[in-house]
Formats: sequence, C-alpha cells, structure tokens
Amino acid sequence: MGITEGIINELKRIVGESNIITDEVELTVYEADGSFVYTAKPDVVVFPRSTEEVAKVVRVAWENRIPIVGRGSGTSLSGGALPIEGGIVVSLARMNRVLELDIENETATAEAGVINLWVSDALAKFNYQYPIDLGYYFPADPGSQRVATIGGNISHNAGGVKCFKYGVTVNNVRGLKVVLPNGEIRFFGGKVIENPGYDIVGIISGSEGTMAIVTEAVLRIVSNYESVKTILAAFNSIEDAGTAVSRIISTGIRPVALEFMDKIAVNAIEAGPWGGGLPTDAEAILLIDVEGSEPGTSAEANRIIEILKSSGAYMVKLARDRAEANKWWSARKQAFGAMGFVGPNYITGDGTIPRKKLPEALHRIKEVGSKYGFRIANVFHAGDGNLHPLILYDERKPGERERALQAEDEILRMCVEIGGTITGEHGVGYYKKHLIGLLYTDYELNVMKNIKSVFDPLGIMNPGKIFPG
Amino acid sequence: MGITEGIINELKRIVGESNIITDEVELTVYEADGSFVYTAKPDVVVFPRSTEEVAKVVRVAWENRIPIVGRGSGTSLSGGALPIEGGIVVSLARMNRVLELDIENETATAEAGVINLWVSDALAKFNYQYPIDLGYYFPADPGSQRVATIGGNISHNAGGVKCFKYGVTVNNVRGLKVVLPNGEIRFFGGKVIENPGYDIVGIISGSEGTMAIVTEAVLRIVSNYESVKTILAAFNSIEDAGTAVSRIISTGIRPVALEFMDKIAVNAIEAGPWGGGLPTDAEAILLIDVEGSEPGTSAEANRIIEILKSSGAYMVKLARDRAEANKWWSARKQAFGAMGFVGPNYITGDGTIPRKKLPEALHRIKEVGSKYGFRIANVFHAGDGNLHPLILYDERKPGERERALQAEDEILRMCVEIGGTITGEHGVGYYKKHLIGLLYTDYELNVMKNIKSVFDPLGIMNPGKIFPG
Repeated sequence: MGITEGIINELKRIVGESNIITDEVELTVYEADGSFVYTAKPDVVVFPRSTEEVAKVVRVAWENRIPIVGRGSGTSLSGGALPIEGGIVVSLARMNRVLELDIENETATAEAGVINLWVSDALAKFNYQYPIDLGYYFPADPGSQRVATIGGNISHNAGGVKCFKYGVTVNNVRGLKVVLPNGEIRFFGGKVIENPGYDIVGIISGSEGTMAIVTEAVLRIVSNYESVKTILAAFNSIEDAGTAVSRIISTGIRPVALEFMDKIAVNAIEAGPWGGGLPTDAEAILLIDVEGSEPGTSAEANRIIEILKSSGAYMVKLARDRAEANKWWSARKQAFGAMGFVGPNYITGDGTIPRKKLPEALHRIKEVGSKYGFRIANVFHAGDGNLHPLILYDERKPGERERALQAEDEILRMCVEIGGTITGEHGVGYYKKHLIGLLYTDYELNVMKNIKSVFDPLGIMNPGKIFPG
Repeated sequence: MGITEGIINELKRIVGESNIITDEVELTVYEADGSFVYTAKPDVVVFPRSTEEVAKVVRVAWENRIPIVGRGSGTSLSGGALPIEGGIVVSLARMNRVLELDIENETATAEAGVINLWVSDALAKFNYQYPIDLGYYFPADPGSQRVATIGGNISHNAGGVKCFKYGVTVNNVRGLKVVLPNGEIRFFGGKVIENPGYDIVGIISGSEGTMAIVTEAVLRIVSNYESVKTILAAFNSIEDAGTAVSRIISTGIRPVALEFMDKIAVNAIEAGPWGGGLPTDAEAILLIDVEGSEPGTSAEANRIIEILKSSGAYMVKLARDRAEANKWWSARKQAFGAMGFVGPNYITGDGTIPRKKLPEALHRIKEVGSKYGFRIANVFHAGDGNLHPLILYDERKPGERERALQAEDEILRMCVEIGGTITGEHGVGYYKKHLIGLLYTDYELNVMKNIKSVFDPLGIMNPGKIFPG
C-alpha cells in the first residue's frame, strides 16, 4: 500500500506540522547516508519527540504495511539508513536527551538520538558536581562519536579505539526501550549485568534496525583512570609492527587502545592542517594507550617501550604530557577526513581478521591496490583485528567508483578467506548483503530471518538490509 | 509418542551398547541435579562421543517427538538438567576434549563436556612449552568450576568471581558448534570478536538448553598478570562494607575479584577443616584481588587498603604471599560446601540487585530469615550485585523444606522489587519459572517463546523450563 494523503495527515497529527518533511526537495537530504554509494528517497520523514510518538508512527506503518526506517545522524557506512523501498523514515534526531546518570549503578540512560559523545559530556558536567574521584564516561567510542547517535551505534554494534579493552557497543548496553513493528512499546534488560530468559537486548543490538526501533538505552559507564600513558612507535616494516602487537598482548598488559596506521594514512594526516607531528617516512605507526594508577602505568609503558624497540621500531616516544598525547590522538581521529588531501574520493572499508593474520592481510590488501591501481591506506584497531582499508579513487574518472567497490569486495572476500568477516562495526546494511552468503549457509540465514519474523512478521522494518534477495 | 524398544535399539546403534543407560536403577542417578529439590527420571540416557552422534540422537528425538535434555555434570541449581517430561538425556560427559589452543587469537576450542577448569589446566601445560610471558587461562570461573562443564556454563551463562572484570560466560564465548532440534549441525560465530548478522551465539548462550545442544565452543582466553595482590578486610557493619565497595569502584581501580561474606558464612567456613584463618567475629568480610604489573598493583593495593580503613574496616590485611592468598581464596570457594557444618541442609539462592541497594538487600534478607526462623548466610560477588543467600534448614523436620523454599521465593521477589532479577547465573530452569512473570509481561515472554520456536518448532528441547505453564 502506498502513502496516501490520509496517512500523511495522520502522521502530521501525531508529530505535529513542524516535525514532518514531505517536500520532494527537502526529502533529498534523507536519500543518502555516510556511505555515499547508493541513494534511496523516503516518501516522508518524521521527527517524533517521544517514544509514544514513535509508537504511534510505527503503528500507522504497521496498519498500512509501509516500510519504516529508523535514522540517527545518517552516518552509516553500509547504507543502513537508506529507505531502499521508500516509506517512512523515523528520525530520532529530536529525541536527544540524556535522561539519567546513575553513578552508583554505573549506568547512563539516554534517548536514541543523543550523540555518542554527549553522554560523556553530560557525565563530565555531572562529575564536576559529584564528589567522586575521577569521573565517568561511556567507553564505546566509534570514530564517528562526535556525530553518530547512540541509537545508530546500537543498531550497528559500533566499535571504537577503546573496544579492545571495553568491548563493542553491545557489551556496554544494559537495557533497551524499543518500539516493536506493531507499535508496542517494550523495555528489555535493566541496570543489572544479567537478565533471566533470552538475551533480547543482545539480539536487537546489531540487528541494524530490522527488528525494532530503539528509542532509549541504559548504557554502562566506566570511571576514568588516574593515569594514562600514550606511546607512539614507528616501524620500517608492517610485519615488525604486527609482531610487536602480538608480543605486547602476550605480556598480559592490556592497553586500552592499540591503533595501527600505515604510511599512506600518516602522510594524508600530515598533509592537512591538523598534522600531529607523526613520522611520515615510517611504513607503520602504532599508537598505544595504557591506563591505570601510577606508578603502574609508568612501569607498563616502559615495558611496552622495550618490546617495541626489540621488535624493530626505529622510533619510540612516550608522550611528555596529555597535550602531546591529545595531538597524536586527534591526528588519528582525523585520519578518515584527511584522505581528502591525498585523493578526491575514498571508500571506507570495514572487515575483521584473526589478529595473527595481520601481516598477511596487509600484504594482500597491497596486492589488491596494485591490481586495481589504487592507493589503499590502512588505519585500524590492531588489538581486535578490525581493519579499515581506505581505498582512494577519483569519482570524476568514469568507471573508477565501480572499480573501487570491486577492490573493496575483493578485500572483504580475502578477510573471509583467512578466517575473518565482512564487517567489524559498520554493519552489513544494503551495501554488503551480497557477501553475507560467504559466512552463512542458506539454512543459517533462514534461522536469522525467522528470528526477524518473530519481531517483524510483516517485514516492514528497514527492508532490503542484511539478507540478500 | 513414547520411547519404544525400536527407538532404544536405534539409539544403541548410534552410540554403541556401552554408551547408553536404560536400566531403571541406573537411571535414578540422572533424575536429580545440583538443586536436589525436584526429581524427574529420563527414559534413557545416552553418552555420544562426537557431534555427529549427538546429531543422530537428536534426529531420532525429532522424528519421534521425544523430549531431549542436554546434561553436563548435572550441577545445575535451577533444575536445568532435569528431564521434566522424561525422554532422552544426552550426557556430554564423554565429549571432553580440549580441541585447540590458539594463543595468537587468544582462543581455546573445547567440547561441551570439558570441565571448566580443564581449559585453564590445558593452557597451563601449553604455557609451559610455549615461549610466552605469563601464560593464559579461561576467565569465566563459576564456583563449580572444578565439576561443571563448559556446555552447562554456556547454557546457564554462568558467572564467577572474576566476572566483575571479565564479564559472564557469554562475554567469553566467540563461537558455538550446536546441534539444532532437527539434527542439523551448525557453527555460529568464530574466532573474531564480532560477527555480521544477528547474534546467534548470544541468543543460544544462556537459553538453558531450550534451543539447541551445544557440542563445542570457541572460548576467549586471557593472559595471566605478572602480579596479583590479595586483600582481606573485616567490618563490624554490613553497611560499611557496602560503602567500601562503592568507594573502591569509584576510584577507577577495577579489582579482578571483589567478594563479600557475612558472619554466618565465615563461621561455617572456619568450623570446617579448611578454615582460612578468617576473623569469625566480623559482621562482613571483603576479599579483593587486584592484578596487573608491578609496581602498579602495590600502589592500587595501598589505595584500596586506605579506603577500606577509612570506610570503617577494623582489620585489613594484605596477603604476605600467594600461599596466604590461596588459603583465603580456597576458604571462600569452599563456602557453599562448608554450610554442612552449621546446618544439615541449605538452599543456594541466586538473585541480582543494583549494586547500590546492597545494604538494603542484606537487611531485608535478614528480615526474611527472622520471619521464617532460618539462618541465612550471604556469600556473593559484590562487584556485580549477584547475591547468593544460603538458607539453612533441616530436611528432617516436616514442612521445613517447603518453608525454606518459601523464604527463598520471598528473597527473590524482594530482589525484583528493588530493581534486580531472579537469577544471576544459576538460570531460571524449572525451579524459578513461576517467578519470571515478575520481570516480563506475557507479551514479552511470547517474544521469547517465538524465538524458541524458530529453533525448536516441536518444543522437544528441554521442555518445561524458563516459561511457566
């Protein structure tokens, strides 16, 4: 059933005239997401301001069999926010309040439209008033944390630099308020660590909006540490950097962050105005944080420095102070944006590999680059084997985008071949659904589809995603 | 359909004459589990030695609509291993091999019948041959780790003293080989941290054998630390001990274990031959481990000692050496068994509460004890709010067991009332299914039941568990 004027009027009554977009030109803003590869225009976008309003909107979609797609900031890199079959886009942008900070239980409750970093910002203000030692923050920190929403993070089960220590988003979600496809409002989970019965919070998290719309989340928060030490190391060989990562981890020291950047990435960063003073001649750079109490962190940092040197690093630096450390980290966090300095366009890849296959994976990514004639930069979370190859290409050259996508495809197939997967944190979405068959048989995909049907028997929730065909 | 002689013969052909029990007397061994509250006799018990044999057995059950219950060591405290509707018990006891230790990827692969501690034992041997610094172990360490199996741990999503730092069992499971109710063998997950699509590993873990039989698991292992410090503190007041826990956590120091024992528990332990020299006059004792590198752990231990003293501990001791620490820890780990010294029988409770409600919960448990005239000992993981009240009663007195169960019931209802749940790690099983309605509406339970039906449309997998009616 299409979207009639009657339905539009019903939606207007629910959210109010100022919280709906139906104009064709305005709708084009919502036809793309962060992947910029495909576009799909919604019939209407609504901006509810409460879970109750979301529920009423979803109920309308249910009764009229209209596709419905939740959207946060639209930063998805897998086409997750695209309304492939049209229908209603439910923007959570106006549900952006941090509802509760509960320090004793180490939780924060936020609406789905809250920007990831706002949770930590709210905690920082709260910490100021509250007599606690070091304050708290939300540890799931994707690269997009300044723009992406909590709801989107949960839907895609986002990772981040600190996930090696604190786990991915789902490990930091305790409870979810959701609107089910029939318009029912339900809360699963709570503030405690475990809940009886089946893990509904876990199955909804990472389901990319195909089961329900998350409207609120109870998040785990963690306390800051007294001391953080940041170490920068430069290598002439990617293999040596890979070996250093394995050796550091085998000591039992668990760095809170362990990031890898290759030469192309470093040169892109240093070409921009926010250069961090990173050595541009290195083949590989590691950026490592350890956290804890003094003098433990100093001892751990010294141990890591020794390992880096004996693994072949030609330069190892301990940040003098937080200012220097922040400079390095902000350089790292700008890596994706900096690609604009070395190539007009790029695709942000996302795959995972077993950690011991790092050197092999990097070698094979290089081969793919040579084959297609693209430079490919590598920036990734070395601790958990989540690769982000950045394929540089030129949109203006005919056929080049298609070839860049082919190159990415080849890299993801290689990840699977060596025991990894096709996404670490960006999701399968629209964009990689043709590859999910590499990981699961039809039988296994049917198990998943049947679980989807439990929540969404009419198939109206973010249709056309994850599953091929 | 009942179990005919033809079916028994088919099962014999699958597992062999020496791997099946049909004798009425021998079957009584399998009519109880660790909860000792209810009994239910199976029609037959089989001991397959491979996933393929499990699959064939399950296929027979499927074709003949016979209930099927997986069983590890039968240590379930919720009636999880009881064949409530009779049928086939599949013992995983003879599938007890550690299949692979993969240090580079920090995983161990084990068959479901492997005893939890054997994984760490296998790693200890391996560590001896392998040039790594400190060796690895499996961090999910329930109190039953010397007897309970990996399969049972996964089915119940067991906790343990180290779970405050490392998470519960599901957080330490990367992949599962399972036999689905129709006899299909499937592998979900892998060695990497995240997998695309829905989190099937997460939904099967903790489902208490109601979806599939787990036959193999890929487990996360973690490295030992160079230094562990153990601290013992004694308090005259339970409230002060609770405050100390909150204050320690708010410093940002994350102890790897943070255990609470009350006076009754300590006196029971000290009455036995394995007394740990714990102070029997204290109202509350905390036992705390911090781990890391030297000198960090010494500094953290000193900080914790200061906090304990300023929170009102009248005695605080740092273990002189590992021998002293091990004496304290083995005293703690014997706590449940030691109850035999202070009362002929006891029920092991299992509930969770938001951590800040600890003093209130302990106060109300005491009230329940007074009301029913039972002594109730408390031993629990203070870090994550998982309570284990031990209700002491005398089986020989008529009606006393029923009253002890009533007291437990009241305690669990109190846990829910103050924001907690009815189980932290023992599961809902048979024993607590009448309480699950306190946590979920019928609608929400139906969502769970429908997910079960995706896996088990005929309802043959561990029937009569989790869901009431």
